[in-house]
Amino acid sequence: MVRRLRVHSPGQGLHEFTQSLSQLVSEAGLKEGLCTLFVQHTSASLVIQENADPSARRDLERWLSRLVAEGDELYTHTSEGSDDMPAHIKAALTSTSVAIPIIEGRLALGSWQGVFLWEHRRLHSERTVIVHIV
Amino acid sequence: MVRRLRVHSPGQGLHEFTQSLSQLVSEAGLKEGLCTLFVQHTSASLVIQENADPSARRDLERWLSRLVAEGDELYTHTSEGSDDMPAHIKAALTSTSVAIPIIEGRLALGSWQGVFLWEHRRLHSERTVIVHIV
Amino acid sequence: MVRRLRVHSPGQGLHEFTQSLSQLVSEAGLKEGLCTLFVQHTSASLVIQENADPSARRDLERWLSRLVAEGDELYTHTSEGSDDMPAHIKAALTSTSVAIPIIEGRLALGSWQGVFLWEHRRLHSERTVIVHIV
Repeated sequence: MVRRLRVHSPGQGLHEFTQSLSQLVSEAGLKEGLCTLFVQHTSASLVIQENADPSARRDLERWLSRLVAEGDELYTHTSEGSDDMPAHIKAALTSTSVAIPIIEGRLALGSWQGVFLWEHRRLHSERTVIVHIV
Repeated sequence: MVRRLRVHSPGQGLHEFTQSLSQLVSEAGLKEGLCTLFVQHTSASLVIQENADPSARRDLERWLSRLVAEGDELYTHTSEGSDDMPAHIKAALTSTSVAIPIIEGRLALGSWQGVFLWEHRRLHSERTVIVHIV
Repeated sequence: MVRRLRVHSPGQGLHEFTQSLSQLVSEAGLKEGLCTLFVQHTSASLVIQENADPSARRDLERWLSRLVAEGDELYTHTSEGSDDMPAHIKAALTSTSVAIPIIEGRLALGSWQGVFLWEHRRLHSERTVIVHIV
């Protein structure tokens, strides 16, 4: 089955959607399988990271934003805003698709793993993630 | 179905092959499914990025080549040329495999998404991408 | 089929497990298919890299550890040890899941490709990789 999932994206950083994804997996009703996620954007990405302490994801965002700085004189693609070219680079350094096995009807995530949309632009409110379950 | 796709690779940078991939997906004749790509090399990678303005992919290449510089005195693996170790690092920072859902018989790419081979070496003319469609 | 694979992880760096993975693929007995790997941790990742010269993977580890340094004053998530936050960042920059097609009953790896667990913490002895074969 294939579903479109709308993920709320209130600005730059990691936004968790493990719960709505888990619900889709429940609805699929498979005991064993594979859940593949694909984000339909070139300035946002997917990441599986620590879901316990929010300081870990804050540091991830701050570290990556320092590495891929705005206003770098190297950029020639500047017509779509100062956060646009850094967003493309950040997306290329992280993941557009991610696959998670399903065991006993549930996502086989580790104890501390959550599924996040990593928003790289300032002014987006929603992103589309395609979910394929088989 | 599994197919070998030969992708033309005229030097370092992002080389689009969305069209030949879309044709394979058409041939598969599936209404709904998943298309998984795998590049059989450790010095080239796969990336889904903006297919509209070529300046975005030029900046991606230039930014990554500045981050992962040739001639870094840290390298000990230098016998295969000055662009070899940077190529391995660039490949490790990007993706060896990527999965794209199929909806209504077509790759479910976003409006601005194209599929690219990211060549990290100077002297390659062709690379092999394995395409699995189910 | 879905299997849990225990991968030995003697400290930071790339640890190959191509052989145990190939054996699982043999056991599955499929002529054609897809093998998807998923690491159940947020401080270790998966990478497909050169399996010939060990100097390449040593340089990968050293380069990434220089880029994502310990003791960076940017970090606020510091309670789990000085190698913890760098480990999360390294994992986010590399891959949590990887998919490899199966052709003629074997993993369709390129001539120089091996499958590695990339351990980003100092004190781990074993990691869990979920293997989905279809």
